[in-house]
Amino acid sequence: MGDLEAVLGRLDDIRADLTELYKDLHANPELSFAEHRTAAEVARRLEALGLEVTTEVGRTGVVGVLRNGDGPTVLLRADFDALPVLEQTGLDYASTCRGTDPDGNDVPVMHACGHDMHVTCQLGALDLLVAARDRWAGTIVAVFQPAEEIGAGAQAMIDDGFLDRFPKPDVCLGQHVFPFEAGAVGMISGPSMSAADGLKVTMFGRGAHGSQPQNAIDPVVMASATVMRLQTVVSREVAPSDTAVVTVGSIKAGTKDNIIPDQAELRVNIRSFDERVREHVIAAVQRIVRAEAIAAGAEREPEFERLTDFPVLVNDPDVTGRTTAALRKELGDDRVQELPPVVGSEDVGLFGTAAGVPTCYWFFGGTDREKWLAAKDAGTLNRDIPSNHSPFFAPVVEPTLTTGVTAMTMAALEWLAKS
Amino acid sequence: MGDLEAVLGRLDDIRADLTELYKDLHANPELSFAEHRTAAEVARRLEALGLEVTTEVGRTGVVGVLRNGDGPTVLLRADFDALPVLEQTGLDYASTCRGTDPDGNDVPVMHACGHDMHVTCQLGALDLLVAARDRWAGTIVAVFQPAEEIGAGAQAMIDDGFLDRFPKPDVCLGQHVFPFEAGAVGMISGPSMSAADGLKVTMFGRGAHGSQPQNAIDPVVMASATVMRLQTVVSREVAPSDTAVVTVGSIKAGTKDNIIPDQAELRVNIRSFDERVREHVIAAVQRIVRAEAIAAGAEREPEFERLTDFPVLVNDPDVTGRTTAALRKELGDDRVQELPPVVGSEDVGLFGTAAGVPTCYWFFGGTDREKWLAAKDAGTLNRDIPSNHSPFFAPVVEPTLTTGVTAMTMAALEWLAKS
Amino acid sequence: MGDLEAVLGRLDDIRADLTELYKDLHANPELSFAEHRTAAEVARRLEALGLEVTTEVGRTGVVGVLRNGDGPTVLLRADFDALPVLEQTGLDYASTCRGTDPDGNDVPVMHACGHDMHVTCQLGALDLLVAARDRWAGTIVAVFQPAEEIGAGAQAMIDDGFLDRFPKPDVCLGQHVFPFEAGAVGMISGPSMSAADGLKVTMFGRGAHGSQPQNAIDPVVMASATVMRLQTVVSREVAPSDTAVVTVGSIKAGTKDNIIPDQAELRVNIRSFDERVREHVIAAVQRIVRAEAIAAGAEREPEFERLTDFPVLVNDPDVTGRTTAALRKELGDDRVQELPPVVGSEDVGLFGTAAGVPTCYWFFGGTDREKWLAAKDAGTLNRDIPSNHSPFFAPVVEPTLTTGVTAMTMAALEWLAKS
Amino acid sequence: MGDLEAVLGRLDDIRADLTELYKDLHANPELSFAEHRTAAEVARRLEALGLEVTTEVGRTGVVGVLRNGDGPTVLLRADFDALPVLEQTGLDYASTCRGTDPDGNDVPVMHACGHDMHVTCQLGALDLLVAARDRWAGTIVAVFQPAEEIGAGAQAMIDDGFLDRFPKPDVCLGQHVFPFEAGAVGMISGPSMSAADGLKVTMFGRGAHGSQPQNAIDPVVMASATVMRLQTVVSREVAPSDTAVVTVGSIKAGTKDNIIPDQAELRVNIRSFDERVREHVIAAVQRIVRAEAIAAGAEREPEFERLTDFPVLVNDPDVTGRTTAALRKELGDDRVQELPPVVGSEDVGLFGTAAGVPTCYWFFGGTDREKWLAAKDAGTLNRDIPSNHSPFFAPVVEPTLTTGVTAMTMAALEWLAKS
Repeated sequence: MGDLEAVLGRLDDIRADLTELYKDLHANPELSFAEHRTAAEVARRLEALGLEVTTEVGRTGVVGVLRNGDGPTVLLRADFDALPVLEQTGLDYASTCRGTDPDGNDVPVMHACGHDMHVTCQLGALDLLVAARDRWAGTIVAVFQPAEEIGAGAQAMIDDGFLDRFPKPDVCLGQHVFPFEAGAVGMISGPSMSAADGLKVTMFGRGAHGSQPQNAIDPVVMASATVMRLQTVVSREVAPSDTAVVTVGSIKAGTKDNIIPDQAELRVNIRSFDERVREHVIAAVQRIVRAEAIAAGAEREPEFERLTDFPVLVNDPDVTGRTTAALRKELGDDRVQELPPVVGSEDVGLFGTAAGVPTCYWFFGGTDREKWLAAKDAGTLNRDIPSNHSPFFAPVVEPTLTTGVTAMTMAALEWLAKS
Repeated sequence: MGDLEAVLGRLDDIRADLTELYKDLHANPELSFAEHRTAAEVARRLEALGLEVTTEVGRTGVVGVLRNGDGPTVLLRADFDALPVLEQTGLDYASTCRGTDPDGNDVPVMHACGHDMHVTCQLGALDLLVAARDRWAGTIVAVFQPAEEIGAGAQAMIDDGFLDRFPKPDVCLGQHVFPFEAGAVGMISGPSMSAADGLKVTMFGRGAHGSQPQNAIDPVVMASATVMRLQTVVSREVAPSDTAVVTVGSIKAGTKDNIIPDQAELRVNIRSFDERVREHVIAAVQRIVRAEAIAAGAEREPEFERLTDFPVLVNDPDVTGRTTAALRKELGDDRVQELPPVVGSEDVGLFGTAAGVPTCYWFFGGTDREKWLAAKDAGTLNRDIPSNHSPFFAPVVEPTLTTGVTAMTMAALEWLAKS
Repeated sequence: MGDLEAVLGRLDDIRADLTELYKDLHANPELSFAEHRTAAEVARRLEALGLEVTTEVGRTGVVGVLRNGDGPTVLLRADFDALPVLEQTGLDYASTCRGTDPDGNDVPVMHACGHDMHVTCQLGALDLLVAARDRWAGTIVAVFQPAEEIGAGAQAMIDDGFLDRFPKPDVCLGQHVFPFEAGAVGMISGPSMSAADGLKVTMFGRGAHGSQPQNAIDPVVMASATVMRLQTVVSREVAPSDTAVVTVGSIKAGTKDNIIPDQAELRVNIRSFDERVREHVIAAVQRIVRAEAIAAGAEREPEFERLTDFPVLVNDPDVTGRTTAALRKELGDDRVQELPPVVGSEDVGLFGTAAGVPTCYWFFGGTDREKWLAAKDAGTLNRDIPSNHSPFFAPVVEPTLTTGVTAMTMAALEWLAKS
Repeated sequence: MGDLEAVLGRLDDIRADLTELYKDLHANPELSFAEHRTAAEVARRLEALGLEVTTEVGRTGVVGVLRNGDGPTVLLRADFDALPVLEQTGLDYASTCRGTDPDGNDVPVMHACGHDMHVTCQLGALDLLVAARDRWAGTIVAVFQPAEEIGAGAQAMIDDGFLDRFPKPDVCLGQHVFPFEAGAVGMISGPSMSAADGLKVTMFGRGAHGSQPQNAIDPVVMASATVMRLQTVVSREVAPSDTAVVTVGSIKAGTKDNIIPDQAELRVNIRSFDERVREHVIAAVQRIVRAEAIAAGAEREPEFERLTDFPVLVNDPDVTGRTTAALRKELGDDRVQELPPVVGSEDVGLFGTAAGVPTCYWFFGGTDREKWLAAKDAGTLNRDIPSNHSPFFAPVVEPTLTTGVTAMTMAALEWLAKS
């Protein structure tokens, strides 16, 4: 314990630099697989810390390896891509960046999911661990993953030979900043984050002048009717005791008011925790889309394209138990909570699944404690506290950064520390 | 009559050149107020014909004046902008052009409304009239108008001093190619084309991660519910004996499947022939949009922005009678039909309204006669014959071009010919 | 003219009795094919007038024949059934009657369509014609038809041998009270009233406890989605220049809040003036109903039952011209107007169609003139003037009654009067 | 144990009679507060068993008291009303009964929720307990409750002085037959059945003839749009991790296809397990109903009438633990399962709440074991196994009856048996 406090002591020396780094990353977000600036900065810092650095793993991923004698191999994972969201936080380090989305559109970009904090905390933890290398033995594989937001980065790294090119881990650890009380950490054993299936749906109508609906098969109406009908999947087809989400995150058709376009595009996101529910919901979405095309008299079948395919993230019970205990020792019992399963998705689990080893993935709070408590008391958490992917989402830098560095460091040492 | 046939005889000499011109214009469409290449070509040709040419009238409009002694002043009007439509005609002179829409997006551009044919026919008619200037007396004001598609070009020219800068017309004439039998012409006295009101509607929700609908106010659902409800304006609120159209030509919200966006945009186009109906429909659209925002629990009122504001186009009974008779003399009774009112809109009428003089605006067919008759017999006109603004719309060059040149020339001579 | 005024003079003698009769009929409405009391009263009065009376023609229909020497045979037709509507007029002779609908339900009954006035006026006209029998020659076939509201009575009388059992008419005349200025009459030549197609649609789901939607296929949602989608037939599939109405007059599913029922019933009414439009709309309704059942995952196809099948009512141009002229002579030009086609339906035309003779059917106003003019000026006719089938619909007795008797008498005499 | 087996032994003697009773009750169901025949039969049998019997407690309820020396007082509760469902089981003892619902309609009646089995089992258990009265001491208060289906019977009995007129219980026990494996029993400690709120919603439009939608404010469309919008409460406003159900069990408007009615009625049922969710959902339903009336241009606000108001049923942990253990001793561990919370509702909890004593309420299976297992393996439980309130729901008589009698007897003896 005394030892570990000494490890963490160095955080006071690097906190200003990490804060600087965090704000710089926040101001310079990059879309999935376009994280070139971010990857270069990560690589530069890993090299400065003395790790063996490999870049362009799975297109833009970075892996740093720190070998420190015999002992277990621990994979630490941070993701580093941002989102096509127009930042509205009003922060002085807010992003004004733009990027090009997969369809070639120019879009705003924002770290609306906190991956900038993940990178910062993991680099901070690595700094502490390097400084304290005499207190532990083993190998750290530090993964900086691209393209988590589109569920493609972990798979891309694995497909790029990750398991063969780097030391095989014994355990995979990672963390995510989340809109609860900053300073606190939470996790759950078992199914921890939902499966997520992304579908791009294209519905085909027939275009015509806006004044001649009788000559058209109106895809705007077709798509709107479909959106309304899709609400019934969760409201009527999923048992109240099961959990599923069907979100149409994007609807697009036409450009002018007076031209009826010839097609519409929906982007549908499906969440579930159970394979049977997942299959039913996907089938129901497809059934409804097809039937609404028939209702509209469409002459061409809708098309479905798979956008993402996240599996359920399962936290290993033993590893989760050990990690919980380790963090409680450092942070105190009341700051390490059991969370309910989160209806969000992550591809972090693919590393453990591919390697056949257990995973533990936890959350750390990013919301100002006072604000959080006030909103909780008022029952207005939903309204007042921006959640991940909101244009208003940004963690308070402290104590978020300190908690994230501490949690990652302590969790790694639980496996690596010399006894 | 012999005289007039002589006037039209020259068409054989210039038909090849006009055809070339038409295909060149078709292959090089330009969006509203961006018709720089088109305007330059028009100006070049007007100058070659010896007209007094003024460019940049109402931003990109061109006016040619031909003074030929004492007599009436006839305004001939062609519009020359194109549309943000991706051409799918498969023609060898199909457009592959792109342009920038008012929102800054890069979009495909196509002459999907036949304005290229309007320009070609009016230039052809002017050539014939110049060649036959000893047979008539008076003044021709040849208007080549920009930005008809957004209902802004005629007003822009008028606001730019059109009435003061050019001879005041006694009558305004114009024509539009339309998906009926090529070789034929049609018109109607009285209300001839509908009023058109374009509204951009922005509905405000609250963004959240796609897995947390409870933290969002989903604008995709809000907008879709609104589209479905807007259908009831025409189906339930407009008397069966009245005419109205409510088209949502564009719906846009979000970019990714797993982010619930914070707003949605609808572009709504409203057609009507009667002021009372027009007011009721516009009010009903606004009522529904506002109520659906309330139903969704929106925290911010929807916003409405006026996009277009076309008045009803009213053909003067006397002028229309004379024009009909004149065209029948040349084309034959069966090729000059009375059409029902067209539920499309035009700003051509603004010239006559501003000048306080009568207008006659007619339609000429652009569809291959055989195809037209076959589809008419089969009752599949709607399915088989692409209408204006369709990505498949393109007039057959002949006899469309010959008919358009002939009609414009004969109509002008009805007012100008020496008796 | 002097003669005819003499004929009408007797109206002053019988007006009080007719008023009494009207109020009695109004207070005692009977549903379609259940008009036993009404038929008995009609038969009694016809006999008193000396006509040959036949009852139970087409179940509850009554026919009176008045032979008066050589001359044309004129069919005069009044319908006499009422509607399942709960009267809310507040009149002292308002109905409090109830009846049994075709499904066996006990329902309120009201003369909400003015058939009581039709009967009264036709009996009044017959009285006048009997009294003036020396002034005309020919035969009157007075038809008192049941079950017009369900489009079944005329066909039932024809199927019951009407054409063989009674003198063949040369012309068919009839009239309907309508919510415009009392004292006035209106009609139009050609298509005068719309085709009407009534469909009963049954959609099949699967019942379950209200807390177990996952075990149900919810027919309430299925039917509601269908109603919303049906709005698009008129708003998107019918040309703005065509006329069609799709009304879902009744929706029924379930009885308790906490049981999801296993089926839903819609009653759909379709109006049109053109056979091609009619066919398209009926097909579109069926397409949408079937597709919405598929969207819901229904295990059984929806069922369609034909409720009514009214053809377009076409007024013969010659007969309509003569009738208009005759009424103008008596009522004055300004009280006999040309009306636009009415989007209501009638089976009166079946008599003429079956006999191969022309029909003229006109409307007479039932709304207090002051109220009518005030609402017209205020543009609130729709809101302030109850229309047929409204629970508030009731003609003002005068001058409605006088006008109806006069119009029917004069129209008959146009054909029968000795020259 | 040996003792208890002796107690249950008598079941062989009375099983035929109980089976007879069950089929008789099933064939003669009665609606809520109309259970006169049932109450009479229950009273007759309780008297025959020697209990003190009081009838008409809370209108039609029956209470039997069996005093057997000093000891605890155990309340045993069975409910005995049936549902307005048309039985479609095809059983030879199927109901053909009809009744009058609260709106005065004649409706079919069926024991579609198994209350006939509850009555039979409780009478069987009382018979066994009377026969074995030397083995236990204390007081049994046997409650036969009316009107559970409308959530009114328990409250009615309490309002009728139940707590003052009968011995105060120390514990409340009850059971419900459910569509799982017959022979098995299941329960859960804590929130066990959901809150249920029933709302009757009346939406007001304006009636008109079906051909004149412009004169109407169509309540069929208004109600259908509302139903579609209500789906979004569960799909968008309730957190995926929370549980809620919004069922529109009944929609009614209009009677004829060609009359647009002037109002529509929805019956909405809301389920939840958490007070905050409950309040949010009820408020959201009201917000949507009101906004959809505004969207329709309604001139009168919708009205809400409370139909039912079931609280959450909470099983006391200690009592549930003891009961589970007691039943496992008799039935075996594998036949007494822990169930997830049930999204159905019950007013049984009101007795315990009013008396301030703990409740345990369990479920016993009613589905043939072979059928159940086959459907479970096939993943077709939802499709193949009729649930409560289905027209096909009927427990297999055995081993359901034996299990229900056994469970009730053993649970009572857990508190009453002489040690």
